Amino acid sequence: MVAEHISSPSNPRVKSFAKLKKARVRSETGLFLIEGRREVERAVAAGVAIDTLLVCRQLLDGTPPRLAESVRVLELTEEPMGKVAVRQNPPGIIAVARQFNTELDQIILGENPLVLIAERVEKPGNLGAMMRTADAVGADAVVIADSATDVFNPNVVRASQGALFLVPLAMATAPEAIDWVQARNLQVVGGYPAAPIEMWSIDMTGPTALLVGAEDTGISTEWDSVATPAQIPMAGSSDSLNASVSAALLLYEAVRQRRSW
Amino acid sequence: MVAEHISSPSNPRVKSFAKLKKARVRSETGLFLIEGRREVERAVAAGVAIDTLLVCRQLLDGTPPRLAESVRVLELTEEPMGKVAVRQNPPGIIAVARQFNTELDQIILGENPLVLIAERVEKPGNLGAMMRTADAVGADAVVIADSATDVFNPNVVRASQGALFLVPLAMATAPEAIDWVQARNLQVVGGYPAAPIEMWSIDMTGPTALLVGAEDTGISTEWDSVATPAQIPMAGSSDSLNASVSAALLLYEAVRQRRSW
Repeated sequence: MVAEHISSPSNPRVKSFAKLKKARVRSETGLFLIEGRREVERAVAAGVAIDTLLVCRQLLDGTPPRLAESVRVLELTEEPMGKVAVRQNPPGIIAVARQFNTELDQIILGENPLVLIAERVEKPGNLGAMMRTADAVGADAVVIADSATDVFNPNVVRASQGALFLVPLAMATAPEAIDWVQARNLQVVGGYPAAPIEMWSIDMTGPTALLVGAEDTGISTEWDSVATPAQIPMAGSSDSLNASVSAALLLYEAVRQRRSW
Repeated sequence: MVAEHISSPSNPRVKSFAKLKKARVRSETGLFLIEGRREVERAVAAGVAIDTLLVCRQLLDGTPPRLAESVRVLELTEEPMGKVAVRQNPPGIIAVARQFNTELDQIILGENPLVLIAERVEKPGNLGAMMRTADAVGADAVVIADSATDVFNPNVVRASQGALFLVPLAMATAPEAIDWVQARNLQVVGGYPAAPIEMWSIDMTGPTALLVGAEDTGISTEWDSVATPAQIPMAGSSDSLNASVSAALLLYEAVRQRRSW
């Protein structure tokens, strides 16, 4: 790998990479940014196509990850690296990567599937935390219905610590997601604050899609005839939990029930 | 309430309020910012002392909350309001409030206490989500050991949706927290990824303090002789969960066990 060197933050290529922090530019180019060694390594291991690798020797801890010969490598000094990074303390490695397929059709389910469906997740940090939990429980897939955030947002990559590349992820409308779960005979279990039956008493041992709604509005009414309501009990004055917390409580309840088979 | 009007973002008082976004200035003044109607109302109901109420009529939804006659009210236009707010879309109400007591001694425990102890929480969003979950389960208190973030950070207030004011909160060093739980005969149950016994098999029905560690380093060794290790099982490649997710899994496991008494 013969690397070019860039030391100016106003270098036109640095500027074009930094623009990938904007959703519009990511959508136009089909590219996105992956910050950090662990995150880039997880993406490469998962087969994400890397377009350009940005390396900052001053910030690098160890050697750069091994990539295919065809990957273009640019060496940046700290200032231009800081311009591309979203983190306040820029990492030694940032990859410019190609967005991967997030269509429902590419999801392959295992024998007794466990899927998380999250409606209108707004905060990149919540989506990242959900991907991390879905990976931790070995979920088959995460489906984002009516997405309100771009899954290729650098803060999703960051909050997921690279789990974005470890769990199959799809984007869909609510009707598409409903068709998909029904065609696959998945029981849908939705987390509702006021459901009559507690989540601990709902059987999640069979093929199951767990559903969490948006923080402000909850699960949309489109799911009313599809989802079995599971109560996540709340004793305090708060009327809802953080969306990634609700998702984790349902996912781990499924694990608890399945592990004691 | 006779309100003064401010329309300039460079007004010296607006500037001094905006400086409360800095930890150093909060520490020096003993003040902090509470953004949003729900958050301010919860703070007032909890007895938090409000110093000044900033109101923006253009952004206000409904009437301002009722406060004591002695509270100074300032009417700001959108531009100065945006300068004080941390949210991108500033709310119609921001309170400048007095920091409350966060010493361990002021915590009063109920009959069968459930406490969350979180070590070195770094992200304000995580601390806020923990407060929200602690409120949802009706926990007696949250203790932050060796805090790495300022609990009066406006992003903590925001992420907690005001639950910061609903659950008694204390800051302490790890040795202080250990003395405190021991003096109160609380069983300490710590979440560890590789503990031999799963959290579902550890009795949390008695007086219990649940302990979660920092995301990068886990629970510090000071707790080794004190904490019963509880495994939060992980199947995937991720080596840890988001700290607020771990806290929620332990808190809700205690609720599951206690509700079926």
